[in-house]
Amino acid sequence: MTRAIGEVPTQFFEFDDPTQPLKLRVGGSLPRFTLAYELYGRMNADKSNVILLYHAMTGSQHAAGSNRHVPGLDGRWTEEVQAGWWDGFVGPGKALDTRKFCVVCANYLGGCYGSTGPASTDPSTGRPWGPAFPVLRMSDIVDSQMRLLDVLGVQKLHAVIGASIGGFLCLLTAARYPDRVNIVVPIGTGLETTIYQRILNFEQVTAIEGDPHFAGGDYYGGPRPDLGLALARRIAHKTFVSLETLRERARGQVMSHKPPHGWYEMNHPVESYMLHQGDKFVRRFDANSYLRILDAWQWFDLVKEGEAEDFHDLFTRCRSHEFLVFSIDSDIMFYPQEQAKLVQQLKRAHVPVMWITVHSEKGHDSFLLEPRLFSPHLSQVLGM
Amino acid sequence: MTRAIGEVPTQFFEFDDPTQPLKLRVGGSLPRFTLAYELYGRMNADKSNVILLYHAMTGSQHAAGSNRHVPGLDGRWTEEVQAGWWDGFVGPGKALDTRKFCVVCANYLGGCYGSTGPASTDPSTGRPWGPAFPVLRMSDIVDSQMRLLDVLGVQKLHAVIGASIGGFLCLLTAARYPDRVNIVVPIGTGLETTIYQRILNFEQVTAIEGDPHFAGGDYYGGPRPDLGLALARRIAHKTFVSLETLRERARGQVMSHKPPHGWYEMNHPVESYMLHQGDKFVRRFDANSYLRILDAWQWFDLVKEGEAEDFHDLFTRCRSHEFLVFSIDSDIMFYPQEQAKLVQQLKRAHVPVMWITVHSEKGHDSFLLEPRLFSPHLSQVLGM
Repeated sequence: MTRAIGEVPTQFFEFDDPTQPLKLRVGGSLPRFTLAYELYGRMNADKSNVILLYHAMTGSQHAAGSNRHVPGLDGRWTEEVQAGWWDGFVGPGKALDTRKFCVVCANYLGGCYGSTGPASTDPSTGRPWGPAFPVLRMSDIVDSQMRLLDVLGVQKLHAVIGASIGGFLCLLTAARYPDRVNIVVPIGTGLETTIYQRILNFEQVTAIEGDPHFAGGDYYGGPRPDLGLALARRIAHKTFVSLETLRERARGQVMSHKPPHGWYEMNHPVESYMLHQGDKFVRRFDANSYLRILDAWQWFDLVKEGEAEDFHDLFTRCRSHEFLVFSIDSDIMFYPQEQAKLVQQLKRAHVPVMWITVHSEKGHDSFLLEPRLFSPHLSQVLGM
Repeated sequence: MTRAIGEVPTQFFEFDDPTQPLKLRVGGSLPRFTLAYELYGRMNADKSNVILLYHAMTGSQHAAGSNRHVPGLDGRWTEEVQAGWWDGFVGPGKALDTRKFCVVCANYLGGCYGSTGPASTDPSTGRPWGPAFPVLRMSDIVDSQMRLLDVLGVQKLHAVIGASIGGFLCLLTAARYPDRVNIVVPIGTGLETTIYQRILNFEQVTAIEGDPHFAGGDYYGGPRPDLGLALARRIAHKTFVSLETLRERARGQVMSHKPPHGWYEMNHPVESYMLHQGDKFVRRFDANSYLRILDAWQWFDLVKEGEAEDFHDLFTRCRSHEFLVFSIDSDIMFYPQEQAKLVQQLKRAHVPVMWITVHSEKGHDSFLLEPRLFSPHLSQVLGM
C-alpha cells in the first residue's frame, strides 16, 4: 500500500559565511547564496538513509506531495509546479519509500524556484542580478548541493538519483565526491552533450536572446522575453515526448485558427498544443535561469568537471559504488545509445552496474509519467 | 563524357491575360503574374522531350550551369545561388541529358527569385505586396507552372521530377494533370506533411513572425526580420543533413566565441557552423516567401489538392504513368518510411513503380550532393 504525502513546505538555507564562499568553476565565487529544498521522510540516527534527488532542467525542489506556496517567486509557482514532479516515486510504500529513506531535493543554483539565481537580488546593488549573475557550470550546482548536505549533517548519501540533465549532476556527484555516495542512479542521461542537443540548445539560446524584450538579460521590471522563451520551450518540448504521443496529445487539443503572432493561421491541433506548452511554460519560468542552465548543459564536460584524466580515470573512483542505469527505448532526447556508452565506460572501469531498458511509448518523459516501469528495480537496488 | 553547361539566363514570362486569371485554391485569383524560369537543352519538333523539374523549398529556377545575374532581386542572387543547384544532374551526358532532353525549371509562384511573390510590386498599389499577397497552396504553384508549359507549347511532359517538397509538387502534377505526364520521379518526399515537419515548420513560422522587424510581413523599406529568418533556417537545416555530417562539417568551421546576440558565448564549432548557415541564408531569401512556402507545406493535402476521394482514387489516374521513387536511407526530414507509404499506395492502385533506396551518410541533402547515387536509375527510366 502506498500513501500520498500531504503538504510539504519548501525550506531555505542561506549560506553566508564569508570565510567559505562557493568557488565557481569558471571564476569568481558566491560568498552568499540560498538553496531552496524539500525533505521527504526522516533521517535516521546516523543519517545514513538519505537519498539526494536532482530535478531535470525546468523542475523544482518540489518532488513530492503538494506545496501551494513558495514566497518571493513573482507568480512562477503555478499550479503545474505545486504538484510534486516525482510524486509517483516518493512516499510511503513507493520506490523511494519515505518510511525508510529521507529524500532531499534542492532547486538548482541559478534556478528560479527559491535558490539564488539571476532573478534574485544582487546584494551588492539591491537589484536583480540579471546578466551580472556569475556563470555556472554543472559542477557548481553539484558543489552547492554538497554544501547543503554538510549543513544537514549528511556525510554519506545512501543514493543519488537524477534523470535527464539531472543525470549529469548525478554522475558528477559520484565522480567529484566518490566517498559521499553509495548507490548511483542515472536515468535517461549520458556521458556528454550530444551534437543534436547542442544544436537544439543553441536554437533555444538564440530564440531567447533574439527576443528584444530579453535586453541582454536585463529585463526585470520591464516586459519579459515571453515570445523567445516560449519558442525555446517548444523547440525542446518535441524531444521530451515521442512523436506518437505528441500526435495523441494534440488530438485532444482544442484547435485555434487564430494567428498567434501575425499572418500565419494555425491548421493542425499539434500547433495549438505546442503554443499552449510554450505559453504555460513562460508563466512558470525565468528566461535567464533557462539560459544559464542551457549554458551549463552546452559546456558540460564530465571528465573536466569531474577533474579526471579520462572516463576510465573518472569511473575508477566509482568502483565501490553500485550503479543502476535506466534507458527508455523511445527516448529521442537521450537516445539509449548514450546510456550504452555510459555503461560501457562503467564496465571498462569495473564498476558494478545494472542496466535496465524500459519500454515506453512516451519517450524521454516516461521517467516522470510511468513510475511502474522504474519502481521495482529502484526498490530492489535502494534496499534497506 | 559529361560536359558542363555554361552561362544560362533566367527568362521571364508575364501572364497578363485578364480573361484567364490564375484561380487560387483558397480564394481569389492573380490576373497578372510573372514566372522566372530557365531552359536547358532544346525542345524537339513535337516538344515531347521536355522534363519539368521542381526545386525544393529555398531553391530557384537556376538548376544548372552558371548565372551571374538576375535583375530586380535586391541582392538575393548571391554567389551561392549563381551555381546551378542540380548541375551534377543536368547537362550533356548527365542523368538529365541535355543532348536529348529539354529541362524546364521555374521559380515557385510566391518565391523570391523572379517569380511573383510577396516582395514583388502589387500592381494595384505600386508597393510590395507583403502581407497582402494572396494565400498560396501547393496546387497553385503546380497550376502556375502548367500555364508556363502552355506558353511554351508543351502538351505532355516526358517526365516530372521533384525532391523534398518539390516532390509534393511532382505528385500533384501527376494527380491534377495525369494526361500531361509520362514519367514521375519523386525523390526523398512523401504523401503528407509529417507530425515532425509540422512541429518544426511551426517553430519556424513563430521564429519569423516573432521577430519585431517582421512587422506582420510589411517590412520592405525598413529593417528585415533577419534574426527570425536565420533562426528558422537553423531549425530547418539540422534536418537536411545527417548529424554525423553536421559534426564533420562543424569540424572545419572556424570557431568564434563571440556572443552572437547577447550574453551567451558559443563553445562548439557546430554553433558557429549553424550561425553561419543562418547568416548566409538571410542574404539570399525573403522572409515572406519563406513563410508562404511553409504555410503551403503545412496545409499540403495531396488528396484534396489533387481533387480526389482518397489516395486510391488519386493514384488510379496515374496507371499510365511510370514512377521512379527514391529514398535516402539517412534522410531525417522525409524518413524512408514516408516513401514506403507512397509506394504502398501506388502499388494498391496498380501504378508501375520502381523504388530505389540510396545509401548515404549525408541525409536528405544527398539528392543535391551525390548525383552518382541517383543518375544510373534516372538515366535508365528517362530513356530515349
